[in-house]
Amino acid sequence: MVVDKNSKVSLCVQVRNMLVDCIRRGELPPGRRIPGERMLADSYGVSRGTAVEALKLLENDGYVERISTRGTFISQEAGARTSALKILYPFPEKSMSPQYLNYANYCAGSELYQGMLQGTLDFNMQITFQYFEDSADRNAAMKQIKSIRNFDGIVFTSHQLSLMRELVTEEGIPHVMVGTHNQEKGTPFISYKRLEGIKKTAQYVIKNGYRSVGLLRAYSDLPENREKIDLFTSVLLAGGVKIDKIWIFHLEDDKELAYKKLKNEMPHPKDGMPEIFFCESVSHPFAFFRFASECGLKIGSDVDVISHGGDTSFRGIMPSLTYLRIPYFEMGVAACRVLNERICGSASAGKNVLLPAEIIEGESTRKRSLK
Amino acid sequence: MVVDKNSKVSLCVQVRNMLVDCIRRGELPPGRRIPGERMLADSYGVSRGTAVEALKLLENDGYVERISTRGTFISQEAGARTSALKILYPFPEKSMSPQYLNYANYCAGSELYQGMLQGTLDFNMQITFQYFEDSADRNAAMKQIKSIRNFDGIVFTSHQLSLMRELVTEEGIPHVMVGTHNQEKGTPFISYKRLEGIKKTAQYVIKNGYRSVGLLRAYSDLPENREKIDLFTSVLLAGGVKIDKIWIFHLEDDKELAYKKLKNEMPHPKDGMPEIFFCESVSHPFAFFRFASECGLKIGSDVDVISHGGDTSFRGIMPSLTYLRIPYFEMGVAACRVLNERICGSASAGKNVLLPAEIIEGESTRKRSLK
Repeated sequence: MVVDKNSKVSLCVQVRNMLVDCIRRGELPPGRRIPGERMLADSYGVSRGTAVEALKLLENDGYVERISTRGTFISQEAGARTSALKILYPFPEKSMSPQYLNYANYCAGSELYQGMLQGTLDFNMQITFQYFEDSADRNAAMKQIKSIRNFDGIVFTSHQLSLMRELVTEEGIPHVMVGTHNQEKGTPFISYKRLEGIKKTAQYVIKNGYRSVGLLRAYSDLPENREKIDLFTSVLLAGGVKIDKIWIFHLEDDKELAYKKLKNEMPHPKDGMPEIFFCESVSHPFAFFRFASECGLKIGSDVDVISHGGDTSFRGIMPSLTYLRIPYFEMGVAACRVLNERICGSASAGKNVLLPAEIIEGESTRKRSLK
Repeated sequence: MVVDKNSKVSLCVQVRNMLVDCIRRGELPPGRRIPGERMLADSYGVSRGTAVEALKLLENDGYVERISTRGTFISQEAGARTSALKILYPFPEKSMSPQYLNYANYCAGSELYQGMLQGTLDFNMQITFQYFEDSADRNAAMKQIKSIRNFDGIVFTSHQLSLMRELVTEEGIPHVMVGTHNQEKGTPFISYKRLEGIKKTAQYVIKNGYRSVGLLRAYSDLPENREKIDLFTSVLLAGGVKIDKIWIFHLEDDKELAYKKLKNEMPHPKDGMPEIFFCESVSHPFAFFRFASECGLKIGSDVDVISHGGDTSFRGIMPSLTYLRIPYFEMGVAACRVLNERICGSASAGKNVLLPAEIIEGESTRKRSLK
């Protein structure tokens, strides 16, 4: 039970963490007197000042109480404290308004949040949401880190707050990452089986007898999107389904812009159409449904549509949509579960979790499934 | 500067609050030594034990630091602490899953949450979401209260956790209530102008020349819904618009059930229809749009629809809906603002805020507005 002097985790935090582990394991029950600063310093091989600092952190967290002249004791609430974990969700968005956030991100975010609330219910936690600047300045970030030592663990969203994540790793604060991209080595990653899901979607198209597919693609050609579309098309081609070059569109995320582009650039539907469209962005089915309705095309009989995204995004679209459901809600729950394991140090702690994505069948592919 | 011994707020919390006020006003700047326990006890007219308790609360909150043998000092972070307020949103829902929560509540909740996140950005706060049992047992509730003394303020949702609200009032912890119903005396209430909104909706119907209206009503006949419908119909009748008795339906909140009921009980649309339907529940337009589409009725030309609800609920419905927009997001922001004022004790603190609700025009009333 000695500290690691080569670790980047400060010594007082190391001592604090070891003492919290003892409290969690019940080796230091409520009411038990903690060894004096000098003894503590000796047994962990640190200076007395470090031991004092560690005790202060414990006191701030409510694990111990100092009773003047008598010493420091494990608090009566320590038991409850160890089970009601305090977790932090830091976010760098400067606005949360649906008017500023991209529609898909707004929907995904709100499902993820509700999932995390569910997770705090399931694992007896409380979750704090706080804005943190996505800064590249180490000193500024270090100051922010100080204010989060009180938390037992942190849920990060992938690709955000990378410097903060780095510092938190150095400090040894348990954390996980939830998101769809940018997995990082050494940090448990909570996501879904993206490529398997894309494969499922392509297989659904093959299985239901479609012979030609059009693509409504994202405007920004990010590597992860390219990978997705490449996989999708290669599975289709292997299954003998034709990707109809004429019907590939790169559309903006914005519903209105996507619609306008479709309206301007679509060949006349009378010149034939692919049997089904695959939509890459959450906004695309909305744009396409509107376009189709204005051309008098019936979705689910004249032309079919398959998409993917979280289910909040597609509520209300009519006819209902067939889509690969990204399990944002479940990812939020799983993030809490894995963080809980990480904090409590169970054997399987720190494993990645990739949840399955399922196809939800709606009326937008009715034509084929009724055959 | 003495405590109120008749107050239900415990003496140590009163002393703590007065000291925090001094810190906020800058009378006790960072680094300043706090008077000793005995002096503190004398100047507030409390026992020494109470003064010790108050100091402990301040230390837990990070306002002060005890430096052994030298005394207790206002911490360097106290300034930042006083601006980065810690607020709590307690929720009693045992499940946050969209599968269990009613659709309207799920949508309203997620807009409210995002609004509160926006509020924490605007007012430099952090917000903690935590489950609390909606208990009627005073002892159990009191235990829960203990764990929330560390928070600077609380946002309650109306009609929930009433015992906890009572105890929090007794403890003198600043709080506000956000919601659509159940205003309570003495607690700032953040809501929207409900009845004015309903009146606006009825006036919209009159102004656009509709002569007959059908109602899709909520299945449960709550007093607040009765009041809403009574107002709506009385404004219409005064404006010479007929409420068509034949077309009044009491429908479940569930989209599927509402649709089935409509399908079974609707007179044949060929026998005439009201010019416009007013939908009381967020699920009703979905059910009615589906029903209409199956009967070959075109929304916005054969029959029009007007509804009300948060805007997340109606994204994606096509043709787009005309509705009275309940400003849930803005209510979340305002709750943080008022709570902030309350905590910081500004003169106008504690006022109710009723936000206006506007009509968002969509294509579901196109027929009339094009006339």
